[in-house]
Amino acid sequence: MQLSPSLTQLIEALRCLPGIGPKSAQRIAFHLLERDRHGGTQLGQALTRAMAQIGHCQTCRTFCEAPQCDICLSVKRQDNRILCVVESPTDVLAIEQTGQYQGQYFVLMGHLSPLDGIGPKEIGLDVLEARLAERLFDEVILATNPTVEGETTAHFVAELCHKYHVTPSRIAHGMPVGGELDLVDGMTLKHAFSGRRAIARDQE
Amino acid sequence: MQLSPSLTQLIEALRCLPGIGPKSAQRIAFHLLERDRHGGTQLGQALTRAMAQIGHCQTCRTFCEAPQCDICLSVKRQDNRILCVVESPTDVLAIEQTGQYQGQYFVLMGHLSPLDGIGPKEIGLDVLEARLAERLFDEVILATNPTVEGETTAHFVAELCHKYHVTPSRIAHGMPVGGELDLVDGMTLKHAFSGRRAIARDQE
Ligand SMILES: [Zn+2]
Ligand SMILES: [Zn+2]
Repeated sequence: MQLSPSLTQLIEALRCLPGIGPKSAQRIAFHLLERDRHGGTQLGQALTRAMAQIGHCQTCRTFCEAPQCDICLSVKRQDNRILCVVESPTDVLAIEQTGQYQGQYFVLMGHLSPLDGIGPKEIGLDVLEARLAERLFDEVILATNPTVEGETTAHFVAELCHKYHVTPSRIAHGMPVGGELDLVDGMTLKHAFSGRRAIARDQE
Repeated sequence: MQLSPSLTQLIEALRCLPGIGPKSAQRIAFHLLERDRHGGTQLGQALTRAMAQIGHCQTCRTFCEAPQCDICLSVKRQDNRILCVVESPTDVLAIEQTGQYQGQYFVLMGHLSPLDGIGPKEIGLDVLEARLAERLFDEVILATNPTVEGETTAHFVAELCHKYHVTPSRIAHGMPVGGELDLVDGMTLKHAFSGRRAIARDQE
């Protein structure tokens, strides 16, 4: 049996969603056609619009429709003279949700990966270097992921900071709060031990 | 932190997909923006097109972009004088995939459900009655689901068939092939017992 061309095309196109195989794609297509055409139409328009209009902030490289994002435009944030370097826009979201950080960001949109042809320029380090050269920051917090590539990238950016006499710092790694020691991976446990701190005597 | 308007809208619109909550919607949106803008754009266009252009076959009511579907247009299928009544277009797909059935279909796009305001007309039984009145069929196979609503609907359509002197038949229900007796639900087991058949003596 031949499905109608638009339906075949829709099922094929749904496969771009992460974790959606042929069976799920078919189920989703029929669900939308049978029960939620309005939702399907809205989603079609939202996708077309988002893919075409969302670019990157000129200053921090996060996703943004305007030339600069709200955080970069905030004078209060600029006054803080702290920059946090992360790998992805979702990291910015996660940090903002803690409500603890009031500085600016720089989003690499990836990490150094020479074997994949991703060098300093591909992750915007030329843009970052220009900002460091402007002496806008006293400290750069390196919040790349605790993976081999993330550590390599953090190390590379730290060297760049030293060149412009800005203090680089690395976020702490160790046991997640509420985590169980025997369930945590070896690399985390290693960080937890090497990053241990002396406990001061209780004040009497 | 405020996400850009197009991004917020996309995350909201993705919630129309079955089983997608706010966290998954956000993950999908960032995945497409970071790694597959081409796929996202294609999906946007496919959705917009499918939702606008896919209608129903005038004859059998299945999803179709043309006035009539390929199956209804097939002379070979028309010659078979058998009609199979199902609840949804995915049922047609499943039956076609067996390769065993060569007749026509009628797709109810649901089942009778008086409490939800779904009566005979809402599931196209006026269209079906007109086709029965044309004396095009010798047999109508009722392949609605083995649920309370599916059985009620099958019973209603069977009465319609009798009115036009067409033989209605119901697909067999029982143990799925390869299924284990103790894992099957009670309703299926009941059907399996009530539909039992005598085993003929081996021919000597
Ligand atoms: Zn920015
Ligand atoms: Zn048809």
